[in-house]
Amino acid sequence: MEQSEPQVQMPEDQDKTSHDAGEPAEVVDDPALLRRREVLLGKYPGQERIRIVRPSRVSLQRVDTGLLKATEASMAPASGFGRVMYRAKRFLIGSPLANEQAVHERLTKFKALAVLSSDAISSVAYATEACMGILILAGSAALGTLIPITIAIIALLAIVALSYSQTIPAYPNGGGSYIVAKDNLGTLAGLVAAAALLIDYVLTVSVSVTSGVQNLAVIFQGLNPYIVEVDILVILIITIVNLRGIRESGSVFAIPTYFFIVSAFLMIIVGLFRGYADHAAFGHFPPVKGVETLGLFLILRAFASGCSAMTGTEAISNGVPAFKKPEPRNARITLIAMATILALLFAGITLLTMTFGIIPQNGTTVIGQIAARAFGNSPLAFMYPVFQISILLILTLAANTSYADFPRLASLLARDHFLPHQFAFRGDRLAFSIGIIFLAILAGLLEVTFNGNTDHLIDLYAVGVFISFTLSQTGMVWHWWRLRGPHWRRSIVINGLGAVTTLTVAAIITISKFALGAWVVVVLIPLLVLMFIGIHRHYTKVERERTTTIPPRPAEIRHLFIVPIAALDAVSVQSLSYARSITRNVTAVHVAIDEEDARRLRKTWREWIEQIGPEEKLELVIIESPYRSLNGPLLAYIDTVHELYPDVTLTVLLPEFVVNHWWEHILHNQTALRLKAALLFRPGIVVTNMPQHLVERTQSS
Amino acid sequence: MEQSEPQVQMPEDQDKTSHDAGEPAEVVDDPALLRRREVLLGKYPGQERIRIVRPSRVSLQRVDTGLLKATEASMAPASGFGRVMYRAKRFLIGSPLANEQAVHERLTKFKALAVLSSDAISSVAYATEACMGILILAGSAALGTLIPITIAIIALLAIVALSYSQTIPAYPNGGGSYIVAKDNLGTLAGLVAAAALLIDYVLTVSVSVTSGVQNLAVIFQGLNPYIVEVDILVILIITIVNLRGIRESGSVFAIPTYFFIVSAFLMIIVGLFRGYADHAAFGHFPPVKGVETLGLFLILRAFASGCSAMTGTEAISNGVPAFKKPEPRNARITLIAMATILALLFAGITLLTMTFGIIPQNGTTVIGQIAARAFGNSPLAFMYPVFQISILLILTLAANTSYADFPRLASLLARDHFLPHQFAFRGDRLAFSIGIIFLAILAGLLEVTFNGNTDHLIDLYAVGVFISFTLSQTGMVWHWWRLRGPHWRRSIVINGLGAVTTLTVAAIITISKFALGAWVVVVLIPLLVLMFIGIHRHYTKVERERTTTIPPRPAEIRHLFIVPIAALDAVSVQSLSYARSITRNVTAVHVAIDEEDARRLRKTWREWIEQIGPEEKLELVIIESPYRSLNGPLLAYIDTVHELYPDVTLTVLLPEFVVNHWWEHILHNQTALRLKAALLFRPGIVVTNMPQHLVERTQSS
Repeated sequence: MEQSEPQVQMPEDQDKTSHDAGEPAEVVDDPALLRRREVLLGKYPGQERIRIVRPSRVSLQRVDTGLLKATEASMAPASGFGRVMYRAKRFLIGSPLANEQAVHERLTKFKALAVLSSDAISSVAYATEACMGILILAGSAALGTLIPITIAIIALLAIVALSYSQTIPAYPNGGGSYIVAKDNLGTLAGLVAAAALLIDYVLTVSVSVTSGVQNLAVIFQGLNPYIVEVDILVILIITIVNLRGIRESGSVFAIPTYFFIVSAFLMIIVGLFRGYADHAAFGHFPPVKGVETLGLFLILRAFASGCSAMTGTEAISNGVPAFKKPEPRNARITLIAMATILALLFAGITLLTMTFGIIPQNGTTVIGQIAARAFGNSPLAFMYPVFQISILLILTLAANTSYADFPRLASLLARDHFLPHQFAFRGDRLAFSIGIIFLAILAGLLEVTFNGNTDHLIDLYAVGVFISFTLSQTGMVWHWWRLRGPHWRRSIVINGLGAVTTLTVAAIITISKFALGAWVVVVLIPLLVLMFIGIHRHYTKVERERTTTIPPRPAEIRHLFIVPIAALDAVSVQSLSYARSITRNVTAVHVAIDEEDARRLRKTWREWIEQIGPEEKLELVIIESPYRSLNGPLLAYIDTVHELYPDVTLTVLLPEFVVNHWWEHILHNQTALRLKAALLFRPGIVVTNMPQHLVERTQSS
Repeated sequence: MEQSEPQVQMPEDQDKTSHDAGEPAEVVDDPALLRRREVLLGKYPGQERIRIVRPSRVSLQRVDTGLLKATEASMAPASGFGRVMYRAKRFLIGSPLANEQAVHERLTKFKALAVLSSDAISSVAYATEACMGILILAGSAALGTLIPITIAIIALLAIVALSYSQTIPAYPNGGGSYIVAKDNLGTLAGLVAAAALLIDYVLTVSVSVTSGVQNLAVIFQGLNPYIVEVDILVILIITIVNLRGIRESGSVFAIPTYFFIVSAFLMIIVGLFRGYADHAAFGHFPPVKGVETLGLFLILRAFASGCSAMTGTEAISNGVPAFKKPEPRNARITLIAMATILALLFAGITLLTMTFGIIPQNGTTVIGQIAARAFGNSPLAFMYPVFQISILLILTLAANTSYADFPRLASLLARDHFLPHQFAFRGDRLAFSIGIIFLAILAGLLEVTFNGNTDHLIDLYAVGVFISFTLSQTGMVWHWWRLRGPHWRRSIVINGLGAVTTLTVAAIITISKFALGAWVVVVLIPLLVLMFIGIHRHYTKVERERTTTIPPRPAEIRHLFIVPIAALDAVSVQSLSYARSITRNVTAVHVAIDEEDARRLRKTWREWIEQIGPEEKLELVIIESPYRSLNGPLLAYIDTVHELYPDVTLTVLLPEFVVNHWWEHILHNQTALRLKAALLFRPGIVVTNMPQHLVERTQSS
């Protein structure tokens, strides 16, 4: 057989020649096929004669010569399990959205407060309790320390908010810690901030969801044994909602957020009033015996736990571009409003704790006890369960904030080649699906690992936040120093104060919580940074390889084909035919398990060669394998040939057994699969998979 | 570029032309490469000039033209993780064995008893206890029933042994239930027997190992909390030993087996003597309150549990070919000896139970209590721990029997195409590795599922054994009827009695244990049989396809190449070159995520085509994908082309990113991988993987 030029015409050729001549090469009476042909070739001349009875789904549309456009139908697998999975996916997350369907809503201050501050504000639901949980270790007398700690945290909040209000005008496109630190302090600082933030986003989801569900369990006591299960369910729901590609619809967020804020203030007012009316003994707690002494270290630990109230403060400065114009001004006002509300709620809840003498108890929450005391036995009694549910809702929104932040930060990192590029791809619904799924899995694992225990989670929490605060503020100091614009000195002082304060707090949290879990974060951050750098290095290398100048023309290639055969049958003849149509350099290789096997094949082969004529020059190499290994000898042979002919392109042709059921895979392909895996690590060898069904097909056609 | 005949010479060509002319095409001064060349081409003329300093490992030896032989070195991966794994494997299971290293030892009666009856004899260690565990439910008074039950089981044993002694001369090549049932009753009966046996082999491992470890824990009480862990460890050790390819060395088996038999008899004699001397009150048990009444059903359940003593009885008739000549006679004598020993030990242990008034207790075993009473406080006290260890050893041998039987039966099934063919492959060490590993995993899972609780395992046990007994005996009845040789009537009566008895017992066990676990086996057997049939059907279909007559000559093939490209870079040009060297019908396809992307590529492409000249006729199709899916549109395009040109061989050329570290895989290939998976289910499309490293290689060369 001479290597002749195949006679197939390419779509475009055909379009220009036979069809334009009005002479269709064949009559197509299958409407689906016709439709497809039309897609590739343009209007098909014979079409008028055929009525399309059941127009098949059109998955590609012809735009122009050489330019097609995919429709939604192209995404659905045609049949089988894939189709079922696809339908399930569509049911859960909705129809795919096209690029042009992306919408961006600009937020008013009112809505922005709801969208961007649920994380920060909702933390009043657990921060006081986290703080008390430490102090109570020194007995109920130690709980008096709550007041100075609360004051310290509120002062800290003021400093951080002031500090961030300076970032807003400087980074009107969003000044996340990663960007600010990277811009001003260099990539490494940016990566540390990013690692710290990613960890904290995961923790935010776990802590918020757990705390929310615990507050629900306060009114539905039956839930208590199933906290973890309900947590996972809530995470699942948030995940699906986010995979659907949540519109940052301010209205949806506004209702639960403001409802919580209003009811919390109502609770504080009513509570303080009732405390006053009942002549409650302020700061009088039920007696609890201490197990530790009230030293400086314990107070610092309590303070560190209370700092969990501060997480989420940076959200507004990240989200400046989402504001209506003038963005910086509106963002600043919103930040001040948020800090004020947070400070008032935190102070109020601490006061109520002191007023009612509430201590942390199993099976309920501190805020739940306060709500029971404030609203219970009064015309406002209905507010108690309503308030508990509103806590769950705002905490769910807080978790949801991480579902926006984590994938967004991950996509920024991916775009800068610090994370796999997949994190930067928008999924069917324009959401960063991989980031969302990743976050959900990590948060779920945390829930299971810590068995839905907020106290333990909070020991890991806030470390990362304050590290990223510090880096961001330090970056701002540098920013002002470089620019030295108007008021640069004042700006440096403010951000410098922020940086020093947050650094101190970061140190306090790390040291006081180190043995309790903060070490995990301290170990994880450098590991993540190393991972970022490793990934970046890899991509850079690849990029260098890829962008070597485009060769001026296709290279000349000399082929050599190796065709492993199990026997001389229709399948192997098909494979040999394929190889033979490409080059004269074809060697069939057979690994013989025993000598009998080798002898038999040699005989069949000789007979076949005689039949087809020796001018075909098809070669057979038999490798006897006394140790019964198939792949080892085959690879040794391939390697030897590859080394002997370094300037020849070596192709290994493997039969691929196409099966009808997934389980049939187990019955075949094991050897071919392992061989393929082994060849994968051998540079420079082309592997061609020849479907076995090809035989049926070509024989029937 | 015209499709010219590549200038490579095949190994054989070279051998006959240039080299024979004494003119080496190139001087090879790398000894390793030289060595490899020599392997493929025969003696290399220039060799004399080169001293081979460090002879590389030779993995292939040249036997003749076109015939190579693999050495042990061909099996070891050259580097990296694979090599570490290979070394670990070699350390665990030893160097690979060549086919000719297989040895077969013929067993004397003495050794055969040890090798083939450890399963049956060892079951006395748990059978009595299993039986009592049921009776005690009706209070200690019910334990008197132990005597009639023991007598019934011994009678049953006699019938079964007599019955099997007839199978031995009829099937001198080994009369396993699968073969006997298949031969005489048809394939379905054979498969049912095989399924029942496979299940029981797994249970034998679990029950024997658990019981052995429990008996060890009797003397090392500290082991009690770790029964499951130690069980898994023992299973692991047996597995490794069997993967090493255990020689059925009679001597190794003889010592623990005979040691157990001798010490057990010693215990019975000493125990009975001491019971007599101490005027022990026979059948007087400590009072235990019954929770059930002693009805027929309870007695049948106890009997069913006691029948676990019978497992392994068929081993001798399976193993006839392993005996020295005359095989049938020796096997028969051994069978009788085994049945006698088993009956005596079982009776003796039951008597001792009655003598000492022993009841099952947590944290110890009945046989352990007996040994303590028989040997304790006497000059034979040292025998107590020694005997407990010997129980562990013989039970381990019993488990080991399954490690021979399960893989052997699985390999028979695989050879008959009822199980994946892998089960019939002998591994490196000539053992049926897959079967061994499978058995280990299943037995280990059982251990974990049942938390190492023998009682629950025994509820599943013996059902399968008696089903296979019944099928085998029924088969023998049919066998005699067909042949009607001398004494055929007597043979039919004996096997008929065996068949009826074992059928009755199978029914008793199934009914009395149904709710307790036997239903699992009853459900599993038909499922396994269905699986066997499904696998067989698949292989038959494939065989039919494969053995369609070998085509008289290679088919003419018309090529059409589709080359998906991510961009126009060195990688895609390399892929296009490859395709271009094979056919003029090459279409590059690019899926564009947005219009900007499409525009950019169109421009680069046009410039490149102008540069290389339009006569190359390379085509580019761009598919805009507004839903950001890459694979959907690509597959839609491939399908369309495939449908339009049914008589053309369509090859999709995918770049394969060769990475240096496994984790780098995550950063690449995701799209290509999913595309490959999708193409796998599309018959008739050839997929070629083009390693990206090829670029570096061809550029540097």
